[in-house]
Amino acid sequence: MTIKLYCFGESGNAYKAALALELSGLAWEPVKVDFFGGQTRTPDYRTQINNLGEVPVMVDGDVRLTQSGVIQDYISEKSGKFGGKDAQERREVLRWVLWDNHKLSSMAGMTRFLMNFLPADKQPKEVIAFNQSRLTAAYELLNSHLEGRKWIVGDTLTNADLSCCGYLYYPEPFGFDRSAYPNIDAWLNRISNTAGWKAPYDLMPGSPADRT
Amino acid sequence: MTIKLYCFGESGNAYKAALALELSGLAWEPVKVDFFGGQTRTPDYRTQINNLGEVPVMVDGDVRLTQSGVIQDYISEKSGKFGGKDAQERREVLRWVLWDNHKLSSMAGMTRFLMNFLPADKQPKEVIAFNQSRLTAAYELLNSHLEGRKWIVGDTLTNADLSCCGYLYYPEPFGFDRSAYPNIDAWLNRISNTAGWKAPYDLMPGSPADRT
Repeated sequence: MTIKLYCFGESGNAYKAALALELSGLAWEPVKVDFFGGQTRTPDYRTQINNLGEVPVMVDGDVRLTQSGVIQDYISEKSGKFGGKDAQERREVLRWVLWDNHKLSSMAGMTRFLMNFLPADKQPKEVIAFNQSRLTAAYELLNSHLEGRKWIVGDTLTNADLSCCGYLYYPEPFGFDRSAYPNIDAWLNRISNTAGWKAPYDLMPGSPADRT
Repeated sequence: MTIKLYCFGESGNAYKAALALELSGLAWEPVKVDFFGGQTRTPDYRTQINNLGEVPVMVDGDVRLTQSGVIQDYISEKSGKFGGKDAQERREVLRWVLWDNHKLSSMAGMTRFLMNFLPADKQPKEVIAFNQSRLTAAYELLNSHLEGRKWIVGDTLTNADLSCCGYLYYPEPFGFDRSAYPNIDAWLNRISNTAGWKAPYDLMPGSPADRT
């Protein structure tokens, strides 16, 4: 049975799940969600795909999951990969996935949306500046943590890496400058040099180019 | 061995861990962190307590954990409580803990801080209004989910409840009006009627009253 992932290229949260699926070796296929056309707000999407209107949604037979961190956890159970090698690493992975949801991807995703997918005259400048200041603290923390490390947890790629990198490969500007954070830069290269890695718009259907 | 929780009354994230400890029946004691006096930014705190400067930190013998969701997960493993009764519920609990980190507590905590713990002339009005608008969507989603349910996941109190309620009992105003969300209001009463429940400033040391 091929796993289905409801997703669209612009979603870094969907990318976290798609990249974990792709690198796990499990059989999967993307199902394009027309987010910018309003599909996640339609009654059909709410009743048939996800009552909370979220993306990504993973369907594997009878199992239907949302939240990228939950989908990653399921992929780890099913594939034996990316979950950490013991209880301590598993908790460390969860710690960084939660930190990412709280401090990094939530802020990066929102700021990228405000700066790139809203008309210039609707962009809340004070909110963008505030978010960027908080993001700087998050980048600095991650960059320090990666000093002397190849991966965020333990000595191999885990869901901690696959979560925190979710928005950091996108080409649209949101204030993140890889060259200012050499440990993050080297770590992103390490992930993208992993066999099978693909950039967001190569891994999932839909991109800003479709809408121009 | 008594579990130690480094915390302070104003922290809703610390409250999530403290409330889980208190209701689990495990032996624990709070250790006050002087956040407003700058303790989490001192070299001693960074080297001896938590290199990321976070609160809460739980210490149980050799185990030292941060992130309230990780601490709750550990308490569930140790006590057998609040983690969900099978794999499906466990994933649903994780889903709501992640949602809370992404959409509810992160926004509520920040907004409450900006509105109550910064001087009036330093409060970023546009950021506060933006956050409150996003929080309204989160309250509405949670209120809808709780329609016809007693608890967020399954038929008993879980970490999903103990995470999402983290900032909702505090007396300081941040734009949350319980009476506008009757299902949330009833659910908060259900949690606070649980034997052993305490309000944040009764469960942890330190409160705004100490600083006036």
